[in-house]
Amino acid sequence: MRKAGEKGAKGVEFARLDFARKERTGFGETVFGPGKTPAQMATIFAEFARRHMPVLATRVTPGQAAAVRAAGVKAEYQETGRLLVAKGGAGPKRTARIPGRVAVLTGGTADIPVAEECAGTLEFFGAKAVRLFDVGVAGLHRLLGVLDKVRKADVVVAVAGMEGALPSVVSGLVSAPVVAVPTSVGYGAGAGGVAAALAMLNSCAEGVSVVNIDNGFGAAVVACRILRRRGRR
Amino acid sequence: MRKAGEKGAKGVEFARLDFARKERTGFGETVFGPGKTPAQMATIFAEFARRHMPVLATRVTPGQAAAVRAAGVKAEYQETGRLLVAKGGAGPKRTARIPGRVAVLTGGTADIPVAEECAGTLEFFGAKAVRLFDVGVAGLHRLLGVLDKVRKADVVVAVAGMEGALPSVVSGLVSAPVVAVPTSVGYGAGAGGVAAALAMLNSCAEGVSVVNIDNGFGAAVVACRILRRRGRR
Amino acid sequence: MRKAGEKGAKGVEFARLDFARKERTGFGETVFGPGKTPAQMATIFAEFARRHMPVLATRVTPGQAAAVRAAGVKAEYQETGRLLVAKGGAGPKRTARIPGRVAVLTGGTADIPVAEECAGTLEFFGAKAVRLFDVGVAGLHRLLGVLDKVRKADVVVAVAGMEGALPSVVSGLVSAPVVAVPTSVGYGAGAGGVAAALAMLNSCAEGVSVVNIDNGFGAAVVACRILRRRGRR
Amino acid sequence: MRKAGEKGAKGVEFARLDFARKERTGFGETVFGPGKTPAQMATIFAEFARRHMPVLATRVTPGQAAAVRAAGVKAEYQETGRLLVAKGGAGPKRTARIPGRVAVLTGGTADIPVAEECAGTLEFFGAKAVRLFDVGVAGLHRLLGVLDKVRKADVVVAVAGMEGALPSVVSGLVSAPVVAVPTSVGYGAGAGGVAAALAMLNSCAEGVSVVNIDNGFGAAVVACRILRRRGRR
Amino acid sequence: MRKAGEKGAKGVEFARLDFARKERTGFGETVFGPGKTPAQMATIFAEFARRHMPVLATRVTPGQAAAVRAAGVKAEYQETGRLLVAKGGAGPKRTARIPGRVAVLTGGTADIPVAEECAGTLEFFGAKAVRLFDVGVAGLHRLLGVLDKVRKADVVVAVAGMEGALPSVVSGLVSAPVVAVPTSVGYGAGAGGVAAALAMLNSCAEGVSVVNIDNGFGAAVVACRILRRRGRR
Amino acid sequence: MRKAGEKGAKGVEFARLDFARKERTGFGETVFGPGKTPAQMATIFAEFARRHMPVLATRVTPGQAAAVRAAGVKAEYQETGRLLVAKGGAGPKRTARIPGRVAVLTGGTADIPVAEECAGTLEFFGAKAVRLFDVGVAGLHRLLGVLDKVRKADVVVAVAGMEGALPSVVSGLVSAPVVAVPTSVGYGAGAGGVAAALAMLNSCAEGVSVVNIDNGFGAAVVACRILRRRGRR
Amino acid sequence: MRKAGEKGAKGVEFARLDFARKERTGFGETVFGPGKTPAQMATIFAEFARRHMPVLATRVTPGQAAAVRAAGVKAEYQETGRLLVAKGGAGPKRTARIPGRVAVLTGGTADIPVAEECAGTLEFFGAKAVRLFDVGVAGLHRLLGVLDKVRKADVVVAVAGMEGALPSVVSGLVSAPVVAVPTSVGYGAGAGGVAAALAMLNSCAEGVSVVNIDNGFGAAVVACRILRRRGRR
Amino acid sequence: MRKAGEKGAKGVEFARLDFARKERTGFGETVFGPGKTPAQMATIFAEFARRHMPVLATRVTPGQAAAVRAAGVKAEYQETGRLLVAKGGAGPKRTARIPGRVAVLTGGTADIPVAEECAGTLEFFGAKAVRLFDVGVAGLHRLLGVLDKVRKADVVVAVAGMEGALPSVVSGLVSAPVVAVPTSVGYGAGAGGVAAALAMLNSCAEGVSVVNIDNGFGAAVVACRILRRRGRR
Repeated sequence: MRKAGEKGAKGVEFARLDFARKERTGFGETVFGPGKTPAQMATIFAEFARRHMPVLATRVTPGQAAAVRAAGVKAEYQETGRLLVAKGGAGPKRTARIPGRVAVLTGGTADIPVAEECAGTLEFFGAKAVRLFDVGVAGLHRLLGVLDKVRKADVVVAVAGMEGALPSVVSGLVSAPVVAVPTSVGYGAGAGGVAAALAMLNSCAEGVSVVNIDNGFGAAVVACRILRRRGRR
Repeated sequence: MRKAGEKGAKGVEFARLDFARKERTGFGETVFGPGKTPAQMATIFAEFARRHMPVLATRVTPGQAAAVRAAGVKAEYQETGRLLVAKGGAGPKRTARIPGRVAVLTGGTADIPVAEECAGTLEFFGAKAVRLFDVGVAGLHRLLGVLDKVRKADVVVAVAGMEGALPSVVSGLVSAPVVAVPTSVGYGAGAGGVAAALAMLNSCAEGVSVVNIDNGFGAAVVACRILRRRGRR
Repeated sequence: MRKAGEKGAKGVEFARLDFARKERTGFGETVFGPGKTPAQMATIFAEFARRHMPVLATRVTPGQAAAVRAAGVKAEYQETGRLLVAKGGAGPKRTARIPGRVAVLTGGTADIPVAEECAGTLEFFGAKAVRLFDVGVAGLHRLLGVLDKVRKADVVVAVAGMEGALPSVVSGLVSAPVVAVPTSVGYGAGAGGVAAALAMLNSCAEGVSVVNIDNGFGAAVVACRILRRRGRR
Repeated sequence: MRKAGEKGAKGVEFARLDFARKERTGFGETVFGPGKTPAQMATIFAEFARRHMPVLATRVTPGQAAAVRAAGVKAEYQETGRLLVAKGGAGPKRTARIPGRVAVLTGGTADIPVAEECAGTLEFFGAKAVRLFDVGVAGLHRLLGVLDKVRKADVVVAVAGMEGALPSVVSGLVSAPVVAVPTSVGYGAGAGGVAAALAMLNSCAEGVSVVNIDNGFGAAVVACRILRRRGRR
Repeated sequence: MRKAGEKGAKGVEFARLDFARKERTGFGETVFGPGKTPAQMATIFAEFARRHMPVLATRVTPGQAAAVRAAGVKAEYQETGRLLVAKGGAGPKRTARIPGRVAVLTGGTADIPVAEECAGTLEFFGAKAVRLFDVGVAGLHRLLGVLDKVRKADVVVAVAGMEGALPSVVSGLVSAPVVAVPTSVGYGAGAGGVAAALAMLNSCAEGVSVVNIDNGFGAAVVACRILRRRGRR
Repeated sequence: MRKAGEKGAKGVEFARLDFARKERTGFGETVFGPGKTPAQMATIFAEFARRHMPVLATRVTPGQAAAVRAAGVKAEYQETGRLLVAKGGAGPKRTARIPGRVAVLTGGTADIPVAEECAGTLEFFGAKAVRLFDVGVAGLHRLLGVLDKVRKADVVVAVAGMEGALPSVVSGLVSAPVVAVPTSVGYGAGAGGVAAALAMLNSCAEGVSVVNIDNGFGAAVVACRILRRRGRR
Repeated sequence: MRKAGEKGAKGVEFARLDFARKERTGFGETVFGPGKTPAQMATIFAEFARRHMPVLATRVTPGQAAAVRAAGVKAEYQETGRLLVAKGGAGPKRTARIPGRVAVLTGGTADIPVAEECAGTLEFFGAKAVRLFDVGVAGLHRLLGVLDKVRKADVVVAVAGMEGALPSVVSGLVSAPVVAVPTSVGYGAGAGGVAAALAMLNSCAEGVSVVNIDNGFGAAVVACRILRRRGRR
Repeated sequence: MRKAGEKGAKGVEFARLDFARKERTGFGETVFGPGKTPAQMATIFAEFARRHMPVLATRVTPGQAAAVRAAGVKAEYQETGRLLVAKGGAGPKRTARIPGRVAVLTGGTADIPVAEECAGTLEFFGAKAVRLFDVGVAGLHRLLGVLDKVRKADVVVAVAGMEGALPSVVSGLVSAPVVAVPTSVGYGAGAGGVAAALAMLNSCAEGVSVVNIDNGFGAAVVACRILRRRGRR
């Protein structure tokens, strides 16, 4: 039989898992779902469970989640955000452990899955996420109606597809850093999120930085790093 | 000596000028400046002057304008908008002859040359242009401060570069049609106006249509066609 | 259980519906179909039905339409244009209530679904749509044969894929504003509508503005805004 | 001193000139001007003159042309088409030696340099070029006014920038093959000729094939190959 | 019930069929398959059969072909080239009626479907196609081995995907016009035929013109127009 | 004489300057240099000087800087970073007033102008910048040699052109948020910074967010917003 | 019945197989799987088996592999690398016959299929492949941990998706040539491998050359050519 | 005065020069010219001269070269290849010290500067370069005429612009690895070398790998690494 690669760090054949990561960095290990078979996903989660360690998987299909649970591992599947969360024995609690709060905004309802990936990741890492969805710029009253809540946040994550204008408008109204997440919502010219990503990189508003299209997870990590700085003083 | 082409419609060798255009369509003839020598531009304006007919040239260089005036043709050079305007004998007056008004907005100060190309063209055709510049979305108070004037317009022309969010925000606040003009203002990713153009085509707001990058002239023609419909009832 | 977002404006959990929209703007609310489950679509239509208000959904799948009707809501499904129309109690009648008429042209037969999205939307908003299909520029006699009807329109919507030349040719033959709709019809270089969209933005003809690829709905809203200006005098 | 390369075929150090080409293929040698110093251009023309052979150079700057003539070589510089033509002793005459005729059309006046590159090349190779300029589709009457002449041609070369619609419209009106030449005329989205090139490749009209942007020379060679087939029967 | 458009020219509701085309142009009508239901395809073929006229459909699915034959219309389905051919009563014979021959080359075996679309179309129009497949430039001996046959052709159609070098190499070896057809064969950078199309437009060889990616049909029409010119003298 | 726009907020005709900005947001006003004449730049700086307020201009040419100083306004021109800084009466001191420090890294020496734009902006806003230049990934020892200094920073700004790998490598070695600045350094495929920008958006490392190509100023503002959060606890 | 093309070199109708290739070049014949039916694949392998000659097919589906084995041909299917290998009578052994070794690295686990295509091809040709997977730059300790093995290789193949930084970092640490293979792993901006490919072409590190996206096979051939040169001295 | 960065490794303020490089890797240090002032270039060369060490600079302008020589440093300026070479005391000789030879081919004469950058770099590193220029595929006889010399090479560097077909054709004729260098020679679609680069990445021929557009230097380094492996056995 063919060997698909060297043994991983801790006995899993197809990946080098980092079981010491939480100790080193304070964050639990995370796994990118696409390309992994349900069986591989189950093996990974079992390895962490055996060590009573938390783990988060993103872009998880229902089939992958089912395989993990069929293997007897306790894990919550967040369908909208496509996250699979195992808390481990001493894992993160839902109550915020990183001080501060992150406002997660979306332009439309179709952007919600990406925002939930972000919010769920924030919560896995112990940060507080305030969800403010469907507040896009085509109806300004919606954004202005929640402005008080946005201004209370230490970091704003602005998730938007189509023309991607939300971060520009928001950033002019707050003093916190704005992490912009373009989404692949839309069609035609600039489909796949290109129009939104370009718009966000070209924002005329100061204080905006951008992560990859649909990368709610990445925005959450950036936000957590910012929050932890805040707490470190 | 080589012949560069057939004779044009009325004796100009390098172009088929349309001296009957105003009669047919109500709009005077217009000329696109780039690629024409100063001498050619002077010849064209002289032909119209000889017929006491109005003519407008766009993207005119100072050198082209000087050549026209050196040839004894009376023409106003609008430096910011790069327009050269000859009113002819019975040409358009500055007082509005097409009923209604067009609000011409810009996101920033760098967009003003394109907006002036639009406004100057509107005035050449006899329409009223209301200039409202530097009202970009990164500082919403600027747009909200002129909203009354915007709402009075029959057509809104929204000129913006960089992330091109202005038309989306404006269109949600008015009931008139919004003609979006992306500009080549900006740099880096999406430079040359691509980001703005894509954003405008992908606008989540209803009622927006788009012309080419930097095409202030084109937006003016669209606006005039709309206004004339309005007056035709 | 996880909360997917704040409550919407009027009790629908996944979206902020705008029931006052018709009052405010004169246009009924519209819903973008993609990304919504059949059950969500049914809920939205039921909310509007409960209020005796009209609503239009675009890009609707047969499954979504079936779910709405299974929920006991009376709604017409226009299969070609993929529209779902509920007229509400005092909703729009088929007889034109916005004065004027809109000519909706297509280059080929494959463009008809986009044109029907436009025409059906116009009718939902109370405007008159004149359908003139399969009149592309490769056989000029087809376009010239319907020119009288085109010239009677107050707005021309020109829908075309492939090389997207129809709006350029039409705009030179009429004095009304031309709203160009590129379609994703075609293949190879410039597939997905890019060639048509670029061609339309670069039109050498005056009076053309452009909406997103396949955005028949957007063209209809622009046309309605123009017509209403016309009626407002 | 450094050697910049092997000796060319016949003693010119920087290029492998093909002095036997005309004998072999019936066409004289041609040289692409950009990147060559005036001195190199002069050397090349002198080598051909010494052999009493015709040669054509394209994209020639006035400086290159001056250098050739300063070297005592008799050559005609066609400024608009940027061609430099030396007829050699027994070179091609202006009177057509390849039977048939080629109609060379342009959409606008700015396309004329490319069309002249095509027409001048046709004449260098002994074919008859019929120039029909500024007949773009935004004013159909211009094209229809010269249709008789277009229909008499054995090949139609249609040169157009901006939206590049001319070949599509022409091809539906004639039975000859249409060689489409996109030009870099235009600006904004699709600048540099990309919009025109894509439109021509996506033409809904049958019988159109395309050469590179601004490649008037290439279109002439294709046309000559077609004409010579015609004559070969 | 909704009306999907005006009646077509001759009673088919969804398209304007051109039954007089063969008379006018000498070529039978052709139909583009994608987007048509099997029932629509059957209706179209039945209309032509009723008039004893030939018709060719391209990009035909097996389901469309089956529907036509189920409707009792006699038509040959060419599976590789995805063509459906009905000869009509006095339709084209397989024996060449347009004088001359067309060499149809492919770089690899994966390009054969496009080449068959071309060859089958040539035969439908009465021209002779000489198939020379799998002669790509990575193994020059294959091309050189069939060079005699290529040189006998009046037109060469060179079909190639990936790097699209075949037309450049062929054009340097023959004196006939070369029609280049890029194919979508390949993957990675330049997938979908973009690399091949760009390479062909940038060919350093003279005498090459290009049609759209995978457009074997279009190349055939160009070739027929060339051949008919040849015969017309 | 033509009016180029409405009067700005405080009497400058071509821009709406925001003199209350520092009070409102804590940051002084900043001005984008390109497109402004030297005279306009001088006027702007004079207006701020008259109010004893600080102002920063970016992308300033030597000519613009000279005009400001010729107008008698005291301002420091930072040539490498192309910044013009006027401190106002009670303006920012060079000593850090925002707590914390920002490490500004570059991949190569050609990236230094962008990094200096960032560092100079940080200092204008009162933050401490630690410059660590020419530490690109092709010679890892350079980065590892300064790792201690990088790890002490509260925010890392990683400036890199070409393949843009620096932020990915750095982010795996630190726990602070990393703001990635792609630069237009490089050539060929992906020139203009596109390759670097795409690489940074696709970073496999967590904790990276991206600003526009060459936008050192934007990265500085993001960093300041982060630092101020840190101080706010 | 229609003839799909000329007979191939040795009696297979749809392809020109090269049975003399191994003799001529020392490498066995290889076949690209996509676009071939299972039956065609079985025929090809049977032809080689009949001659006791080795053959390798790439991008093979399980269905194609099954068809070959159902035809009684002995062939190993390597599922991860999607390779089908028949060794022939005197075919390549697993023991290295080309001297030297190739290190095959991947950035992540999702890149392994491409790396296995490379490693399996190397082994088919008789070269030694050393697999070192999941050593991406976001966790430098992984790469540094295997650096000794990398440095022992005569050629390094670096396979990576997303930001494609691995070859740049590796090339600075070794003196062997580095063949970079971008993969289509990733999403959003630069999806499909474009970001990785551009990054690798723009590598700031010396000694890197690049093959097509996902082209593990191509990298193996380049490596073998290098190794054989090494052995030839 | 402002500090532009930390001190470099050895006292040069604007760069971290690597004076130990030759010892470590066997290759002398190289410097990328663009973005450096003439004064900076002179300083760099003086530092190496002071240490009697060789150094090579690429993309050097005549002004930079003059400054170096004005500073009294002995250095050869290779104008065509834009290289500046200082041999140091014990620097590389023109006689080959790395065994083997590299054939450097170009498609046309306009590609020669890139090829000279490659050849000159090879010679700086002590390798033998065999120049074979202007052998593009449009005239196969030119390539076949030098095939013996190409086949004697241990590495082939194939430099080509426009359609970039040269490496594909060459690689099918030799057994050595082929390093393909796309050049920015060409115009129109795919200008700037994009068409050539894509073609080379998509080569249907085995054994080709690609470096960045115009990167003759990079190809030389890859070739040297290959040659040194060859010698290492």
